[in-house]
Amino acid sequence: MVCQARFLCLLVFYVAVTLFCSWFRQAPTNFIEPVNCPQNRFLGAPRLLTNGNVDSLTRTGRTKPALVAVAGSCALAAALIGPARRGYSFRTLRGNSRILCAASGSDVGVVLLSAGVGKRMGASIPKQYIKLLGLEIALHSLSTFLECDVAEIVIVCAEEWQHIFKDHLEKHGPPNCELKFTCGGKERQDSVKNGLDKITVPIVAIHDAARPLVTQAEFEKVVSDAREYGAALLAVPTKATIKQAMGADEAFVASTPTRKLLWEAHTPQVIRSELLRKGFEKAQQDGSEVTDDVSLIELLGEQVKLTEGEYTNIKVTTPEDIAVAETILKQRGFTPPE
Amino acid sequence: MVCQARFLCLLVFYVAVTLFCSWFRQAPTNFIEPVNCPQNRFLGAPRLLTNGNVDSLTRTGRTKPALVAVAGSCALAAALIGPARRGYSFRTLRGNSRILCAASGSDVGVVLLSAGVGKRMGASIPKQYIKLLGLEIALHSLSTFLECDVAEIVIVCAEEWQHIFKDHLEKHGPPNCELKFTCGGKERQDSVKNGLDKITVPIVAIHDAARPLVTQAEFEKVVSDAREYGAALLAVPTKATIKQAMGADEAFVASTPTRKLLWEAHTPQVIRSELLRKGFEKAQQDGSEVTDDVSLIELLGEQVKLTEGEYTNIKVTTPEDIAVAETILKQRGFTPPE
Repeated sequence: MVCQARFLCLLVFYVAVTLFCSWFRQAPTNFIEPVNCPQNRFLGAPRLLTNGNVDSLTRTGRTKPALVAVAGSCALAAALIGPARRGYSFRTLRGNSRILCAASGSDVGVVLLSAGVGKRMGASIPKQYIKLLGLEIALHSLSTFLECDVAEIVIVCAEEWQHIFKDHLEKHGPPNCELKFTCGGKERQDSVKNGLDKITVPIVAIHDAARPLVTQAEFEKVVSDAREYGAALLAVPTKATIKQAMGADEAFVASTPTRKLLWEAHTPQVIRSELLRKGFEKAQQDGSEVTDDVSLIELLGEQVKLTEGEYTNIKVTTPEDIAVAETILKQRGFTPPE
Repeated sequence: MVCQARFLCLLVFYVAVTLFCSWFRQAPTNFIEPVNCPQNRFLGAPRLLTNGNVDSLTRTGRTKPALVAVAGSCALAAALIGPARRGYSFRTLRGNSRILCAASGSDVGVVLLSAGVGKRMGASIPKQYIKLLGLEIALHSLSTFLECDVAEIVIVCAEEWQHIFKDHLEKHGPPNCELKFTCGGKERQDSVKNGLDKITVPIVAIHDAARPLVTQAEFEKVVSDAREYGAALLAVPTKATIKQAMGADEAFVASTPTRKLLWEAHTPQVIRSELLRKGFEKAQQDGSEVTDDVSLIELLGEQVKLTEGEYTNIKVTTPEDIAVAETILKQRGFTPPE
């Protein structure tokens, strides 16, 4: 989208220069002084701006070249200033562990966890690489993050699967942010740690690649809460009644926690990077193991905000989940890539 | 299924009698003594069993009539003894609040909760009457219970929806158990109470009609646990991380209960009827409100067994759930009714 806009701006500029030059060749050299449009300096044609003035412009009736010059200048300015603001640097797409360089103004980095080898699907490949309406599960959420205002995305995956992401990016043009790769660890927690080590911005959003249906709106909401409170996670109020058992091997009900207070944790879980680093240190000291990321912040005794997300942000782990995910995507009007 | 088997038995008996009589007319009256087949008394033809013996049978070479007699007798015995064991009494299907009478030997009654008016589906009718592969959601679990060894089924539903169940039963022949109807109450708990009031057997299984995918195996497992422990429910270990919030209106994480101890409650929930009645009394005294049935037993301080069920026993509440349920049913080879 951004690339197309830039291309259009440059095209307008090119047409404008051609037209302007063709008109100028037939006109006196002293009539144009493009007032109120300092961008015109980008034309790099000071010889055109010598001794004319606006009066002479209107008097001679040569408004067309002037307007074309203004349009062309604006187009060039848009083409140059736009991308500069987003921090593009147009490096090559293919690389090793760092795919693209950009200097986004955003303070948010994403760690996309795609290192799982879960075979609950009964498929021969990890579940996140199964196709969902023609696009690999892991690429759905990646596409969403690429549309968001993020500075960097760290993809945690086995080296043999990096090509899935690289091929996708090559096909869809350079992203708005820096992309990095790192390998997974033994446990989920270790993978998060590997991802966090590559994060250079103040806020990190950790997301399971097996949740392909997260939306841009959900992402923005949870990032906003994390900025305000230090840590936040997408979650939904639990629909089911939950029972607490007496023990892991003792399947008798010990209690039924009040349903109104229970939330089902989703991802992204968004945390100030420094806070998460402290959480990891604490967990290492205590030898704690957690099943999600904000738990590390809870270990520190810090507050964690529950950001109400959507029930559709499901984790795809079984063939039935694929059916649900496809239904939701179709309802959203998602069309499979060509 | 049971009806068809019975019909087949009677047909075999009829053919056997006809053949036997036709052969007998051409044979001496003194050669048949059907040893080792006491059921033959059902033929009601003592005049055939006078002074013959097996030796004479083989000597005369008339083995065919003897075999036919044996087959016919067995068929009649099967046709008579089978249904008697299950307690059929073949009353008329249509009635008012009590549809069918039978005297099953089972000690289990089912309360099928179908009084919900939930409109989360966006449909104009309550969700349990939406069709799932051609059969109303509520009828899926009813069909399962009709295949199980139960004494009575109490359907809790609005009077205007009773016809759904009555039409289904009329189409599929008389059930193996007694069927009753009662109306729903204000809350789920009140509907359960109404259903329980109609239960006359020692064990009651309460089931949400919105869970169409429960299997016979799951039902038998949870009933068996309830017989042993007094109360049991189908449940599955929670896959998601659950967060406990600080308050109903305070969406900050208070704690993350250990996931290994958490179970998601399903139905049926099976309880000794007297125990459940006591639970209701206690809840009324305390003014307690609960979201499921075994919670009433927990209030009494009695033990409740968590019977591990299947993840497929989902509650169908959204259009996405319909998609999942259909996928599961298709995988099971379910074919829509004609």
